[in-house]
Amino acid sequence: MSGSEDARASGRHRPSLSARTERLARELVAEAELLGLGVRRSACGATLVDAGIAAPGSLEAGRRIAELCMGGAGWVGFSTETRFPGVPFRVEVRSADPVLACLLSQYAGWSLAWGEGENRFRAMASGPGRARAAKEPLFAELGFRDRDAESAWFVLETAREPPEGLIEKVAADCALPPSALGFVLAPTTSLAGTVQIVARVLEVALHKAHVLGFPLARLVDGLGSAPLPPPAPDLLSAMGRTNDAVLFGGEVELFVSGPEEEAAELARALPSSASRDYGRPFAELFAEAGYDFYKIDPMLFSPARVTVVALATGRSFTAGTLAPELLARSFGL
Amino acid sequence: MSGSEDARASGRHRPSLSARTERLARELVAEAELLGLGVRRSACGATLVDAGIAAPGSLEAGRRIAELCMGGAGWVGFSTETRFPGVPFRVEVRSADPVLACLLSQYAGWSLAWGEGENRFRAMASGPGRARAAKEPLFAELGFRDRDAESAWFVLETAREPPEGLIEKVAADCALPPSALGFVLAPTTSLAGTVQIVARVLEVALHKAHVLGFPLARLVDGLGSAPLPPPAPDLLSAMGRTNDAVLFGGEVELFVSGPEEEAAELARALPSSASRDYGRPFAELFAEAGYDFYKIDPMLFSPARVTVVALATGRSFTAGTLAPELLARSFGL
Amino acid sequence: MSGSEDARASGRHRPSLSARTERLARELVAEAELLGLGVRRSACGATLVDAGIAAPGSLEAGRRIAELCMGGAGWVGFSTETRFPGVPFRVEVRSADPVLACLLSQYAGWSLAWGEGENRFRAMASGPGRARAAKEPLFAELGFRDRDAESAWFVLETAREPPEGLIEKVAADCALPPSALGFVLAPTTSLAGTVQIVARVLEVALHKAHVLGFPLARLVDGLGSAPLPPPAPDLLSAMGRTNDAVLFGGEVELFVSGPEEEAAELARALPSSASRDYGRPFAELFAEAGYDFYKIDPMLFSPARVTVVALATGRSFTAGTLAPELLARSFGL
Repeated sequence: MSGSEDARASGRHRPSLSARTERLARELVAEAELLGLGVRRSACGATLVDAGIAAPGSLEAGRRIAELCMGGAGWVGFSTETRFPGVPFRVEVRSADPVLACLLSQYAGWSLAWGEGENRFRAMASGPGRARAAKEPLFAELGFRDRDAESAWFVLETAREPPEGLIEKVAADCALPPSALGFVLAPTTSLAGTVQIVARVLEVALHKAHVLGFPLARLVDGLGSAPLPPPAPDLLSAMGRTNDAVLFGGEVELFVSGPEEEAAELARALPSSASRDYGRPFAELFAEAGYDFYKIDPMLFSPARVTVVALATGRSFTAGTLAPELLARSFGL
Repeated sequence: MSGSEDARASGRHRPSLSARTERLARELVAEAELLGLGVRRSACGATLVDAGIAAPGSLEAGRRIAELCMGGAGWVGFSTETRFPGVPFRVEVRSADPVLACLLSQYAGWSLAWGEGENRFRAMASGPGRARAAKEPLFAELGFRDRDAESAWFVLETAREPPEGLIEKVAADCALPPSALGFVLAPTTSLAGTVQIVARVLEVALHKAHVLGFPLARLVDGLGSAPLPPPAPDLLSAMGRTNDAVLFGGEVELFVSGPEEEAAELARALPSSASRDYGRPFAELFAEAGYDFYKIDPMLFSPARVTVVALATGRSFTAGTLAPELLARSFGL
Repeated sequence: MSGSEDARASGRHRPSLSARTERLARELVAEAELLGLGVRRSACGATLVDAGIAAPGSLEAGRRIAELCMGGAGWVGFSTETRFPGVPFRVEVRSADPVLACLLSQYAGWSLAWGEGENRFRAMASGPGRARAAKEPLFAELGFRDRDAESAWFVLETAREPPEGLIEKVAADCALPPSALGFVLAPTTSLAGTVQIVARVLEVALHKAHVLGFPLARLVDGLGSAPLPPPAPDLLSAMGRTNDAVLFGGEVELFVSGPEEEAAELARALPSSASRDYGRPFAELFAEAGYDFYKIDPMLFSPARVTVVALATGRSFTAGTLAPELLARSFGL
C-alpha cells in the first residue's frame, strides 16, 4: 500500500497546525521570564527563542516546546516514576493524531545547512514549520501540506543561533516573510532540550514503524512515556542519555488498524531490543562507531517496550523490555 | 435519612452545568478534525458528534467526551500504568463534587427508546442534559434540576444515530428547541467509547454507594483510576473489557462525612469482590446469563479496590483487591 | 556567596506574579460553588475565601489554592500512587522557577498577629502577597519585590477569619487598599488544606536548602510529589499527617548549578532521615516536645527521598528513603 493510498485509507482530513502553534508560541514568548527563556528578533525579523544557550531554560519550557513542536496537536506532562532507582520523574506524551503531531510536525526531518568550513551551520529542523515548507518526501507521501499556515515555527537542537542567510532561505522555502518565522533553540545539554527530546518517545516509534514499511494510515492513535534523565553538560553524554531514556526506559502503546498479524509483527520488530546494536548505552556505541551516526543501526532508535493493539480484532501484542541497569549506566547512577 | 434531607445536610448549593458544558462542547466541535470526530446537524437541528461510528475518534476525544459527560465538573487524564503487564496506560478521573459530576451528569440513567420492532432505537443517555430534563427520580431525590441550562448535551454508547422523532421528544422533555441539543455518539467498541466508559470508575462507586443506601450528601469528594483496555471490535468483548477495567483494575478513594462505622461498612460492601458474581470476566458471565443484564448482580459493578476516608474521625478503610490475572484474561493478554 | 550575589549570579529577572495570581483568584471565586468554597467581602472590603471552615471545600479547591499560593508560577496535579497500601493517590508539584514559586510566594514565612489574650489571632501567611509586602529578610536577600502587583493574595492555614484590624494592617504593609487583598482560609484539617500543605513538598526542600546555606541562585529547577493523606479532624493529627506525607513519602528532584561536590553534599543533608528527630510520626514527636515547635529540629522538615542533579557535571545524587511503615502509622492505616 503506497503512502497516498494510506492517506485516503485513513479517511482523515488533517487540520492546519497554524492556529494551535501560534497560540502556543504567543504564550511561550509572553511567559519567557518565568520559563527562563531569552527572546529576540533576528536582523531579518525572525523570532529567536533561547531555551538553554545563554538563558537557563527550564523543564516546563521543555514541556511547552515539545507541545509547540507537535504543532499543538499533542500534549506532554510529567509524572512520578517508580521503577528506576534515582530517576524520580517521567515524561508522558500523547496526541489525538500521532501521525500529524509526531511525523508531520515533531520529527526532526528537515536538514538545514548554511555557510562553509568551520563556520558551517547544520541542524535538523523539527516542528510544524516543516509542514509549511513541505520539502521532505514525507509530505508528498502523506498528501499533507500546511498551506494555510501564516507562520512557521521550528525547534532546533543547537547551541548556536541560525545565520541570517539560513533564516532567509527557510523563509523563502516557506513562502513567508522572515518575520513570520520562529526558531526555538534548545541545546541537547539543556533542561528544556532534555525534556523535548525525551518527549519524542512516541515519534521514534512512529518513525521506526514507517521505516519498517508499516502503513502510516493504519496508525490510528498512540501514547508514550519515558524517564526524565539528568541533563549532561557534554554533547555526547547528553545525546546518550536522551536516547537511552527512550531505548531502555521508553514505553509506547500504538492502536493500529489492519490485519492482526501485521500488528503482531510490528510489535516484534519495534522495540529497541530488536536491533543488532542493542545492549550498550548509546554514548559508548556512538564512540565506538567513530561518532558516525550512519554506522549505527537506524532500527535501534525506538522505545524499550511496545504494545500494539490490533483494532480489527482487539488483540494486543507487547514486546521488548525495560532495562534499568543500562539506563543507570547511561544516566551515571 | 431521605434524599432531600441529604441535599440540605450537604449544605451545598450546586451550580448549573450549562456554561461549563457549552464551553467543552464548543471546543469539541471546533477541534473535530484533530480529534477524529464527525459533526453534523440532524434534520431538526440537533448537533450530532460521531466519535467512532464512521469517524475514527481518538483517545483524546474520549477524554474530552468524559469531561463533557461530567458537565465540566470533573477532569480526566491519562497516566503510566505499572502493575498490569501489557497494559501500559491508565485513565484517571476526579471531580470537586462527585455527586454533581458523576451521578447528576455522567451516570447513564435516562432510558431512551423510539420506534418499533427491528428498527427500535434504544440507548441509555448520560451527560448533563439529563439534569435539564430531570425525568429520573434521582433529580427529585437530590433536589437538583438544571433549570438555567440553555442547551442539553448527551453521550450515547451507540453505533446508530438517534431517530429524529426521539430527538424531538428529548427536546420537548428538556423544554428546549432541538437546535439546543447535542448528542455525542461513542460506540463501546471505539477508542473514544473505551476511554469515556472507563472514566466512569468513580461514578460506578458512587452509584453503588447510592444503591447500598449510603446518603449521597455524605459523599464529599473522590478520586478514581482504572487501566485503559485495548478496544474490542465486538460489542460483547468491548462491554467486557470496559467493565473489567473497573472491576479488576479500578481504584477509588471516597471522602465521606458521618459515622466512622458507616464509612467502614461502605468500604467493605463497595468493591467488586463483595459481589456474589465476582470472579470471572464480565463477558463470560454475561454469556452464561443468556445476555440478560438483569440476571447479573447489580452489586458487581464497582471498582476492584476502594478506600473510604471517614472525615469525622480521619480513619480510612481499604477493601478489595486488584486482580491482574482476571484483567489479563478479559483483555486477551 | 551572599544572597544578592546569588541574585546576580542566577542571571534571572523574575516577573511579577500579579497577573497570574489575579487570573487564578478570579477563577477560584467564579467557580466557588463547584469547588465548595464560601466567598465574602470583609467589612473593609478584602475578599475572604472559606476553603474548609463553614464551607466543605474540596481536593480540587486545594489544588487550585496551591497554584494560587505559588503565584501562578507552579503547577499541581494528582496521580495514582502505587507504593503505599491504603494510599491510592499522590500530589505532584512543579515550577519553572522554584525559588520564585516556592520561596518568594508559597512559603509560609510572614508571621501575622492581631489582638490580645485569648482572642489573639496568629497565622503564618503564605502566598504571592508576601512579595508585595516584602516584610521578610528573604526578599531583600533575593533582591525581589513585586512592586507592580495591584493586588495581594494570601493563604492562611486557619479555621478563623482574620480580624479587620489585621487586614487593614496588611493592606498598609502592601501599600494597597483593603479591597485589593484576598485571603484564602484553608484549615489544616480540611480537604483543601491537606492538598495545599502536601503541595509544599518542593518548597520544604528549597527552604531546607536555604537554611543549609546552599546558594538559592543555584537552584535552577525542581519537581516534587508526595502521597495524599486522609484529612484528620483534629489539628495535631492533621499537622502530623500533612508533615509525614512529605517526611516519609515525599520525593523531590532538584537541578542545581555549581560544584558537583556541593550538589552531593546537598543530597546527603536534605532528606528528612538526615535529621536527629527522624524516626517517628510528627504528631508523636510534637506531643513529646510539649507542643513546642521550636524544640523540634528544623532540619526534619524535608522530603523522604531527594535526587540532586549537578548540572555542571551531569551527575545525580540520591539520598533518603521512603518509609511506608511510618507513613501507615501516621495515616492511621
